[in-house]
Amino acid sequence: MRPFKSLISDEEAFNIIMENIRAINEIEELSIDLADRRILAEDVKAPYDVPSFNRSAMDGYAVRSGDTPEADTPFRVVGEIFAGMSKEIKVNENECVKIATGASLPDSCDAVIMVEDTEAVEGEKDKVRISKPVQPFENVSRVGEDIKKGETVLERGTLLDPSKIGALAALGMQRINVLRKPRIAIISTGNELLPLGKDLEGSRIYNINTYTLSALVERNFCEPVAYDIVEDREEELKKALDSAMDNDMIVFSGGSSVGERDLLVDILGKAVLFHGIKIKPGKPTMFALYKDKPVLCLPGFPTSCLMNGYLFLVPAIRKMAGAPERERRIVRARMAQSIKLSRGRKKNVTVRLEGEHAYSVYKESSTITSLAGATGFITVDANRGLVEKGEEVEVELFSW
Amino acid sequence: MRPFKSLISDEEAFNIIMENIRAINEIEELSIDLADRRILAEDVKAPYDVPSFNRSAMDGYAVRSGDTPEADTPFRVVGEIFAGMSKEIKVNENECVKIATGASLPDSCDAVIMVEDTEAVEGEKDKVRISKPVQPFENVSRVGEDIKKGETVLERGTLLDPSKIGALAALGMQRINVLRKPRIAIISTGNELLPLGKDLEGSRIYNINTYTLSALVERNFCEPVAYDIVEDREEELKKALDSAMDNDMIVFSGGSSVGERDLLVDILGKAVLFHGIKIKPGKPTMFALYKDKPVLCLPGFPTSCLMNGYLFLVPAIRKMAGAPERERRIVRARMAQSIKLSRGRKKNVTVRLEGEHAYSVYKESSTITSLAGATGFITVDANRGLVEKGEEVEVELFSW
Repeated sequence: MRPFKSLISDEEAFNIIMENIRAINEIEELSIDLADRRILAEDVKAPYDVPSFNRSAMDGYAVRSGDTPEADTPFRVVGEIFAGMSKEIKVNENECVKIATGASLPDSCDAVIMVEDTEAVEGEKDKVRISKPVQPFENVSRVGEDIKKGETVLERGTLLDPSKIGALAALGMQRINVLRKPRIAIISTGNELLPLGKDLEGSRIYNINTYTLSALVERNFCEPVAYDIVEDREEELKKALDSAMDNDMIVFSGGSSVGERDLLVDILGKAVLFHGIKIKPGKPTMFALYKDKPVLCLPGFPTSCLMNGYLFLVPAIRKMAGAPERERRIVRARMAQSIKLSRGRKKNVTVRLEGEHAYSVYKESSTITSLAGATGFITVDANRGLVEKGEEVEVELFSW
Repeated sequence: MRPFKSLISDEEAFNIIMENIRAINEIEELSIDLADRRILAEDVKAPYDVPSFNRSAMDGYAVRSGDTPEADTPFRVVGEIFAGMSKEIKVNENECVKIATGASLPDSCDAVIMVEDTEAVEGEKDKVRISKPVQPFENVSRVGEDIKKGETVLERGTLLDPSKIGALAALGMQRINVLRKPRIAIISTGNELLPLGKDLEGSRIYNINTYTLSALVERNFCEPVAYDIVEDREEELKKALDSAMDNDMIVFSGGSSVGERDLLVDILGKAVLFHGIKIKPGKPTMFALYKDKPVLCLPGFPTSCLMNGYLFLVPAIRKMAGAPERERRIVRARMAQSIKLSRGRKKNVTVRLEGEHAYSVYKESSTITSLAGATGFITVDANRGLVEKGEEVEVELFSW
């Protein structure tokens, strides 16, 4: 059994990983109905004005605003225009055109009087009386009011959401260029791992990390590529590593501790940039740049694995994807119980929030329920061995 | 042109919609690698203890804890156990077994001494000296410590996330029952609408709402079913309505204003539960229960449509999906500029946040950029016509 060479702090580990991650920058064209939560690969400039015509914002009557100051003058209705209708009607003094919301204003008109501001003229079916004047372009959406031709509507790197997809649709764009999702290989290792669905036997445990990490990767703008479980044998691990080299990053779980069977340390050899982080859970974490490919080896214990996936893998893959950083959300709470902790490493302790109270749900790094029941986690300094009941703590909420 | 019969408040509209929405409650079985962000359809009880054996939490030596109080006693190493290895070794007084993290403890042992707390005995290869005593079950994850057999691990209605998927995997579950996603029909109406990709002509505008609403529905745990654009003709609209009845809810955009062509009011007839909400944007919103099917008619204007989709459709479909309510996130900010607004209706004004400052980005309900450039929105009372520069406002952040 070999000791870790030298543990480094979580900040150092984070920095080493991030310095060695490059954004993918490859482009993929797709239909905008598949583009939500994708990252725009180019500036989008407007090929048209939106709207491309002066558009009535109301149901009412299109008029020449200059004709309207004299209230009570009856206007002669010389036509009717619905939305989508391309019809040019010439409007002269004290004439108007009945117009629907969204319809194109006649060239000779410059304003719309709302239907509520008019009344019928008794006995004269083709006339309306207007009860108040309108200003030029009142109740009219002018050409380019929403988007001006040539304007940059969305910038490269924008994370698309429903409203931004709306802006692309407004420009008639059916297909757009987005950044390709990085492919992240996920390889769980260990002779003790049993594939899901098989009968539980002897001293084996089910493979958890492939599923937790895949979901985490998927949520963070990347494509998980799950591999079969690999046994703790050097040639098997080496084969798995080589077969995964066509992905953008490779994530192992297990095999990075200090046991005699933790062979990844040897396989990655000089490519290892750090091995071991001064945090709990999550010490046996290793990062390598192997033939220019980032390789992150996470602990085999499910909570350690997912927690470090959250803290180190997520920022890395989001950077690779060109996605915005994960938003950290921190709330203040009071510990509902005291927690005794070991000293020596910085600790991330998972907690469940109930109102203002935080309950520790941390059991062991080997347990998955330490995470599955948690709302977030508190961070406790290396030299502190106790968090007291009633103490105010900052809880970082999980935002998977 | 017909007036709205009577506008109701947004709270009333919200309540009427929610009272008429029922959760789907239909079950769908799927593989857990597709289960992230799905809603569990049943309580999950543990069929096994996890771990199912006493498991070493460390690399070290398995011992009988009662043998350890005398420090400096050399222990004879009688075997070695790796993780996943099913091997029973009998351990007698002052004997130990070299054991790896995750391996099964021999029945005769009850604790593990960390490798760091031992040292080699010079000249005696098969012996180690232990430097401190251990308590019973120290450095051991006991049977059922993570999950106890028979325990309810996750409850029906749980929204799955990476850690909860981990808990399912820990139990070896390959497939699980989740709630079927409600299918939400999305039908944009209007003669002025042009399908994306076609050349822009005359007084037409591109179809935006199908895309914004589909993305919104998808993000909120439901399946959007997008239909072709429907013209403003009674028989076409009636046909579209009938053809969409095999979905769980039908959403129209356009056709619910008071123009003569707003035919949906007539088609839905007595099924209409309200027509018109006292808010801006979004007045021409209608809700019906047509042959027991919820039908929501949203305004045609893109910002009105998406804003009311956000405020009314999202809560409805999340209820239908059995998903948790959308989390409202409100931050305080100061207006960077004053905004003049019309009186009479409650207003939702979209704003962009820059640090502590809120800038109005609201143009017109017909513009999509009123939303695409917004971080959130402020709500202004019906009787207020001005928000002043420097005023403190509460900004509700969009959480699509």
